[in-house]
Amino acid sequence: MPPLVPRWPAWLFCWRAACIQGASVRQRMWVGPSRIPGLGGPRGAWGTSPLAPRGSCLASSRAPEVTLTPERYPVRRLPFSVVSEDDLAALEQVVPGRVITDPEDLEAPNLDWLRTVRGSSKVLLRPRTTQEVAHILRYCHERNLAVNPQGGNTGMVGGSTPVFDEIILSTALMNQVLSFHDVSGVLVCQAGCVLEALSQYVEERGFIMPLDLGAKGSCHIGGNVATNAGGLRFLRYGSLRGTVLGLEVVLADGAVLNCLTSLRKDNTGYDLKQLFIGSEGTLGVITAVSILCPPKPSAVNVAFLGCPGFAEVLQTFRTCRAMLGEILSAFEFMDAECMKLVRLHLGLSCPVQESPFYVLIETAGSGPGHDAEKLGCFLEQVLDSGLVTDGTLGSDERRIKMLWALRERITEALSRDGYVYKYDLSLPLDRLYDLVGDLRARLGPSAKHVVGYGHLGDGNLHLNVTAETFSASLLGALEPYVYEWTAGQRGSVSAEHGLGFKKKDVLGYSKPPEALQLMRQLKALLDPKGILNPYKMLPTHA
Amino acid sequence: MPPLVPRWPAWLFCWRAACIQGASVRQRMWVGPSRIPGLGGPRGAWGTSPLAPRGSCLASSRAPEVTLTPERYPVRRLPFSVVSEDDLAALEQVVPGRVITDPEDLEAPNLDWLRTVRGSSKVLLRPRTTQEVAHILRYCHERNLAVNPQGGNTGMVGGSTPVFDEIILSTALMNQVLSFHDVSGVLVCQAGCVLEALSQYVEERGFIMPLDLGAKGSCHIGGNVATNAGGLRFLRYGSLRGTVLGLEVVLADGAVLNCLTSLRKDNTGYDLKQLFIGSEGTLGVITAVSILCPPKPSAVNVAFLGCPGFAEVLQTFRTCRAMLGEILSAFEFMDAECMKLVRLHLGLSCPVQESPFYVLIETAGSGPGHDAEKLGCFLEQVLDSGLVTDGTLGSDERRIKMLWALRERITEALSRDGYVYKYDLSLPLDRLYDLVGDLRARLGPSAKHVVGYGHLGDGNLHLNVTAETFSASLLGALEPYVYEWTAGQRGSVSAEHGLGFKKKDVLGYSKPPEALQLMRQLKALLDPKGILNPYKMLPTHA
Repeated sequence: MPPLVPRWPAWLFCWRAACIQGASVRQRMWVGPSRIPGLGGPRGAWGTSPLAPRGSCLASSRAPEVTLTPERYPVRRLPFSVVSEDDLAALEQVVPGRVITDPEDLEAPNLDWLRTVRGSSKVLLRPRTTQEVAHILRYCHERNLAVNPQGGNTGMVGGSTPVFDEIILSTALMNQVLSFHDVSGVLVCQAGCVLEALSQYVEERGFIMPLDLGAKGSCHIGGNVATNAGGLRFLRYGSLRGTVLGLEVVLADGAVLNCLTSLRKDNTGYDLKQLFIGSEGTLGVITAVSILCPPKPSAVNVAFLGCPGFAEVLQTFRTCRAMLGEILSAFEFMDAECMKLVRLHLGLSCPVQESPFYVLIETAGSGPGHDAEKLGCFLEQVLDSGLVTDGTLGSDERRIKMLWALRERITEALSRDGYVYKYDLSLPLDRLYDLVGDLRARLGPSAKHVVGYGHLGDGNLHLNVTAETFSASLLGALEPYVYEWTAGQRGSVSAEHGLGFKKKDVLGYSKPPEALQLMRQLKALLDPKGILNPYKMLPTHA
Repeated sequence: MPPLVPRWPAWLFCWRAACIQGASVRQRMWVGPSRIPGLGGPRGAWGTSPLAPRGSCLASSRAPEVTLTPERYPVRRLPFSVVSEDDLAALEQVVPGRVITDPEDLEAPNLDWLRTVRGSSKVLLRPRTTQEVAHILRYCHERNLAVNPQGGNTGMVGGSTPVFDEIILSTALMNQVLSFHDVSGVLVCQAGCVLEALSQYVEERGFIMPLDLGAKGSCHIGGNVATNAGGLRFLRYGSLRGTVLGLEVVLADGAVLNCLTSLRKDNTGYDLKQLFIGSEGTLGVITAVSILCPPKPSAVNVAFLGCPGFAEVLQTFRTCRAMLGEILSAFEFMDAECMKLVRLHLGLSCPVQESPFYVLIETAGSGPGHDAEKLGCFLEQVLDSGLVTDGTLGSDERRIKMLWALRERITEALSRDGYVYKYDLSLPLDRLYDLVGDLRARLGPSAKHVVGYGHLGDGNLHLNVTAETFSASLLGALEPYVYEWTAGQRGSVSAEHGLGFKKKDVLGYSKPPEALQLMRQLKALLDPKGILNPYKMLPTHA
């Protein structure tokens, strides 16, 4: 069947400027160690991720030192044992040559990539197998040693870095694909596989990963599952709670819980894997994942549009959902401040007329001609009705990546703007953007920038405030105000980032006391000594 | 845009015969009580469901009495208290006029609709509010009275009927829609709403329920969630673990756990609602549900096709998924024996040439012309290649219902064929049908019929064996053989029906001992006295 003649105006095809600069537009440049002894080679010590410092302002070797977490936050060390020389010798027996104690090599894994929290762990372990993880945890459980499981260390809430001297248990060497079924699309792999590597692997076989996020070049699938990552494909493919089919988990005492099935449907008993999805490493360590990959769509289109106001953004979403239906795969928005920052810090320029708001719409379908026709009708409609004032389209891979970069690299641009106060909120659509303007008025010049962007199709606002440095007074102006505002809308104070260390005390804004109590009971049941990722997820006080 | 000219042969439009008889083609005729004192009216005592005996062979008033469960199965009553006159008086204070003790009214709720298990409960409670449920459970917890939560009582595994004298806690009067948001499609309702009533409600507002199943006319949404129902839309809209956004649950001691949010994304703490999805009323009583409804597709088509062999069924599925992509909403199959039974017992006739296998494919999309074109190309392909030998299409509501009836009413036809041994298995696609032929050879004339059908797109086989009456020797020929065969394929011995009472002891075929241990610990944590739906879900012996 010949492709249908596109019906949208020719100008939409024009790329208005050489707008995108920089080689890697879909990767964050994560700060990471430049060297791990005895583990060289092209994949490096941290899997396939582009972790070597790339001359960015984030490079730990040049940036000012980050305050240790216990010096910035009120937190006390719990009475865990301290790692002794005997412990190191015993652990060396379990993972020979993979007990890392060189202070230089421990710098990066002790620091979150936002450079907001820093631990003082003296040892990092690099198991390759589930059995090694089981031995490690059995040992730590007996010795009452605290353990911080760590994947790509790309979290936003300080969940993946130690607070004090917890042993870092890295999944970086657990990066093997265990099986892939090319009819069902079920992928089974170790927890330390990097998301982008998995994406490439399944795309070569005609499928895609059901999740995608800006940190894909570094984040591990085990960390994605442990944090119940949302991301850019959530609108279309839903939650990991539906797409993860099975997990293998090592419990706090070293017992291996093998629920690594590859079945789409399995109602035999309580669905234990759900306990570990989104539990941020506090209930067990995920060692392998079975996940359902959707077929790779044969046609992908991205439209990047300018909208005159937030009301028009919302109306564009409604129109889009009605007219694009099942081929809609993403609906993202960003405000003019975001565009300003990606231009300022990353050199990207805006591909459409400057507008108060921008919308990125992606379609993914099986019929290129049909999809183009649907998208064309939609664009005519929103342009004719004034909901959209300008727009551009991409349907080849290069342009699609360029357009996505404008949205995906906002986080990176923000981190270059100074200290970032990050809020990740679920809110009713109608009120989604109100808080941004409200905060601009409230904070005045004490904030450098107040920006709003996010996954509008999922009701998820990323609200970010930047300042030159961390300031307790600015924090005081933001919190608990932001949380109270969100709770007033019955929203969530953490839509997708989780709670980790930095947000653990705000759980009560979104969950009632009965829920907190049950969470504590579950933690006590699964990790009675509390050695797994302590100081995270659950509030400090009852 | 004018609809495109369909490209499939004209004969496909022909309805080959006046093939479907009977007025209600998408409803099972559930057995139910004809009268509950004091609760008349058009909606009846059991919500909107068509529960009155309809002259079918299932009507309890005429069918032979079903053996009491403890007389057929080896099970001992646990030391719960026995309901006293004082208890009845106290409960009457909680739900005045809604404490049912008339033996005639208790007949139906003591019996599962398959007529395979029968309890001897002496009291049924009909709360209207969450607070009433909380009061009831607080009382029962204090008094050590066992409780059997009951929705539409349409389960397949004896999970919704008492085993001994457990108090039946019916959700039938908790049938109010609490809210519906016509942009997001989020429905919040009480647990006792009948699925079909909810479907009608949201369809009038431009949405559909994310699940659909044969029992829709009777089953309650709370029961659907408690059993993690799969059904006919699973292939497209996925698991309830993804589409259920929030739950309100009353715990065993009467505490109310309010996690009834309406947010698509919420990563604040452990996702407690997942504990209750699929826990079959053994961990808490679901009292309200928040669920995400997808937009109603503007075009629905159903193709009913005959295939010459199971290999061709599988190849048709692969072709279908590749060519129909995102508009594919169901792929069901049934064998020739199923067709024989729906003809024999329900008077339905086959709309295509007789074939060894039949496939039902549904598409649901937003572009009628596009969908018709995709479907036409697919049909040409499978007919030309000989994968399909004959077929018919439906695109108006009446024909779609008629075609669906052939698949949906198999369960009903089976129940009219005699005693039914039911197996609901997840298996690798390539081996999905092998067990059916295997069993035909194994059982020989001792079985009346051995049939296979199910949700092929989800790898879910419904394997059913009928006989004139229950026979321990036939059961012995079936079990553990079927379970061992399934375990050998790393399949699930309960894909979607759950374990209930009848399958609880086979859990170990699909889950390892470490999982069973953790399940027992969760049960002990949430229901320390074990009063909630006892004798269900978890195996009798450790």
